[in-house]
Amino acid sequence: MTSRDGFHWTAETGLAQGVPSIGVISPPTNITSTEQPWDVIVVGGGYSGLTASRDAALAGLRVLLIEARDRIGGRSWSSNIGGYPFEMGGTWVHWGQPHVWREISRYQMRNELESSFDFSRGVNHFQLRTGHGDQTMSHDEEDALLAGALDKFVNVDGAKGRNIMPYAHDTFHVAEAHQYDKMSVQDRLNAISASLTPNERAVLEAFTLLCSCGTLETTSFLEFLHWWALCGYTYQGCLDALITYKFKGGQSSFAIRFFKEALSTGNLSYAFNSPVKAINDQGGKVTLTTRDGREYTAARLISTIPLNVLNTITFNPPLDAQRTTAMNIGHVNQCVKVHAEVSNKDMRSWTGISYPFNKLVYAIGDGTTPVGNTHIVCFGGYFNHIHPEEDVNKTKKAVENLAPGNMDIKRLVFHNWCKDEFAKGAWFFSPPGLLSSSLETLRSAHGNVYFANSDWAVGWRSFIDGAIEEGTRAAMAVKEDLRPKSSIRSNL
Amino acid sequence: MTSRDGFHWTAETGLAQGVPSIGVISPPTNITSTEQPWDVIVVGGGYSGLTASRDAALAGLRVLLIEARDRIGGRSWSSNIGGYPFEMGGTWVHWGQPHVWREISRYQMRNELESSFDFSRGVNHFQLRTGHGDQTMSHDEEDALLAGALDKFVNVDGAKGRNIMPYAHDTFHVAEAHQYDKMSVQDRLNAISASLTPNERAVLEAFTLLCSCGTLETTSFLEFLHWWALCGYTYQGCLDALITYKFKGGQSSFAIRFFKEALSTGNLSYAFNSPVKAINDQGGKVTLTTRDGREYTAARLISTIPLNVLNTITFNPPLDAQRTTAMNIGHVNQCVKVHAEVSNKDMRSWTGISYPFNKLVYAIGDGTTPVGNTHIVCFGGYFNHIHPEEDVNKTKKAVENLAPGNMDIKRLVFHNWCKDEFAKGAWFFSPPGLLSSSLETLRSAHGNVYFANSDWAVGWRSFIDGAIEEGTRAAMAVKEDLRPKSSIRSNL
Repeated sequence: MTSRDGFHWTAETGLAQGVPSIGVISPPTNITSTEQPWDVIVVGGGYSGLTASRDAALAGLRVLLIEARDRIGGRSWSSNIGGYPFEMGGTWVHWGQPHVWREISRYQMRNELESSFDFSRGVNHFQLRTGHGDQTMSHDEEDALLAGALDKFVNVDGAKGRNIMPYAHDTFHVAEAHQYDKMSVQDRLNAISASLTPNERAVLEAFTLLCSCGTLETTSFLEFLHWWALCGYTYQGCLDALITYKFKGGQSSFAIRFFKEALSTGNLSYAFNSPVKAINDQGGKVTLTTRDGREYTAARLISTIPLNVLNTITFNPPLDAQRTTAMNIGHVNQCVKVHAEVSNKDMRSWTGISYPFNKLVYAIGDGTTPVGNTHIVCFGGYFNHIHPEEDVNKTKKAVENLAPGNMDIKRLVFHNWCKDEFAKGAWFFSPPGLLSSSLETLRSAHGNVYFANSDWAVGWRSFIDGAIEEGTRAAMAVKEDLRPKSSIRSNL
Repeated sequence: MTSRDGFHWTAETGLAQGVPSIGVISPPTNITSTEQPWDVIVVGGGYSGLTASRDAALAGLRVLLIEARDRIGGRSWSSNIGGYPFEMGGTWVHWGQPHVWREISRYQMRNELESSFDFSRGVNHFQLRTGHGDQTMSHDEEDALLAGALDKFVNVDGAKGRNIMPYAHDTFHVAEAHQYDKMSVQDRLNAISASLTPNERAVLEAFTLLCSCGTLETTSFLEFLHWWALCGYTYQGCLDALITYKFKGGQSSFAIRFFKEALSTGNLSYAFNSPVKAINDQGGKVTLTTRDGREYTAARLISTIPLNVLNTITFNPPLDAQRTTAMNIGHVNQCVKVHAEVSNKDMRSWTGISYPFNKLVYAIGDGTTPVGNTHIVCFGGYFNHIHPEEDVNKTKKAVENLAPGNMDIKRLVFHNWCKDEFAKGAWFFSPPGLLSSSLETLRSAHGNVYFANSDWAVGWRSFIDGAIEEGTRAAMAVKEDLRPKSSIRSNL
């Protein structure tokens, strides 16, 4: 099936919107006239919504899943093109990510992962292109450069961030953390600039922008420290957790397992292609209204709508002032992720940073396609921003600039998350101050409406893991809320 | 409630068997005459069995949980004595352990953890007592000593074990791993002995024995590498994951959540004090017979009986030759864990190794009791073995030897896992060769009987995490097996 989402370009076909995915659900609904009201409506079919739907359905609740798109996965989905899964959004997983790994383990998918890196081919180096020229170095030298720079960057406490962020799943475990949330990455760079070599400065800026896809000024230094702590306080840990292991069959091969299991309970109704207009909590029940005027009613509702989209929905009663402020500020991630298939097989072992002059900042050889081309994945962000579908030649130029002479582009694949009305950005990244002021508020319920999204997870916030964490939390809360007290045989 | 398990000593009371625990279940059964047959019988109420029971009950299966003891938790349980939770077995958890962390997150218990270490008090040093005398050093020096020694020990591949064990949740991901499973820790020490200082040699032996609680000859070097990989290939990672975070309320405060949730479904029957004699798979059904002659029948059975106990049960049809061989070899962990409450408040910040002369090898200040004493947790193993209840004065002497003059013992608490007929040892640790020959066999089903235990988990094998991994796997398998095909609304 082909999704409306995503873009695809080859010289032969030109630019086309919509790419195939095993995450597209057809027919788009299984609702008959008899199900109303449900126990719980889940809004959104990303990993938060899939997890919440599955767990609630497994627990015997009657669930209605409402999704604006034609597919599951939200900000993580894969497109199978030419027998190769291109990851349109969130991609990498690791066993240090507890919620996602529990699911990989439970679905016996441990052996369906592969490494993005393969340093066995010819162009086996790191290419650093800055305002100061073009350098190549070995991957060991790359790692040493990044590790050394990051160690300086995070070392606010003489312990590489451990004292400020000792407990990676509790951002504000130490009160002093709040002061670092007032600080941007730019502020921190300014504070240590005298200690950095030009190369260190360049890769630090590029790496932190790769994480936030905002600008140096709009990236919370504390949130970067949080990522660092999650990754075990080492650059090697960052590589392992952030950008190494991906599904051989693509993210949608994983997401579909949640959906199928939920469906197998017999408790799941669903409706895709159903953007939401309003959510009305009438006390005893919640009614959802779609843009096309359908109404659905349930005892509870779980909204997995992303932070940057929340203010497009009418809530009644209205959301509180703090949450409203937070969703109007929003997160800063305007990631531009572009896949390029290039003819040079040896580029499989290449990595590169081109910064600050280029529209795409960071890229790696990520795979080999069935026809033997190299798949390069490239990242840009709000700094030096492009909308890749607006001018394909400009996009190609940005890819070529990463490794001039080695990027003979055969295909481009991408999803423009910034113009996506149901995402308005990619993974969450906090501007300074937002976490301090709003994290707890964003996590709270609003009457019979629960909010679950990786954007306000406590652990791997921004990651697939955080989405599953949140979906798990919401399903558990609703289950406890609706559990018939009579079913308890004993009060231990 | 007081369990039959565990021992307690004070000067006033002398030695007494049985200690209180919130994990004791009373009344010990809720079975009425009408439930037979069940969908699934789960044998064992440790974390594997609790997880399997809960997940199966949540999925709508009718579950009978059979447990030999009077309590839940298996090899992980806590005793509340004087308002303080003493951890009788498995204790520490970490967010890098995916299955256990998912549960901590799901039960919203993130904030119920605390650190075992507190380096703010007076006796703030590491005390190393060897045949060469008594040394003290700072904890930073301790860490540097251990880290340096371990880096040499694991560096079989120029990458500190990463190349041999790149994928921590798949021990034999690299075929070359098999050769390191033929090697004991003693073999590896012999190979690098010229490069080790006497202090490095002493702490390496003590640390690896702390992990296996066997002897240097009976400890698989590969299994140690597996632990090392799980901990992120650093000593700091080992500290973080293995011995830092524990439940403020003790392990039983966590285990009881699984049990209560399973019970709340209305699908859980249980019988404690019910040691199993035989398990008969008659094809269409499985019948379990207890030692006292009760018979229970179900469509499937999940055995969470530990490896070292499996050969006390009669299976019909008999288990296959490979599994029988493996269970007769068994694992090597004969841990002696002794809690001592001492009057010196400043010992809170002390750590120590006394090796090889002492009956207890490794100890740390682990907490402060309500009356202000320091709780010291001490570990020994099969090397220089004691049964701590057999001669309390000898046990006290072994504690005192760890820090002569600073161990004014007010209380001892322990569980002798080695004489425990339902455990026959503590956490799994493999002798050389066992994993290579038997891991896959131990994980396989036997007709309608599934085997789930941390002893053969793929990830955090030996840990609470591995137990939950295994219980999750078994419940999923039984659920898929018994799922009525008619409940599927759609064949996606």
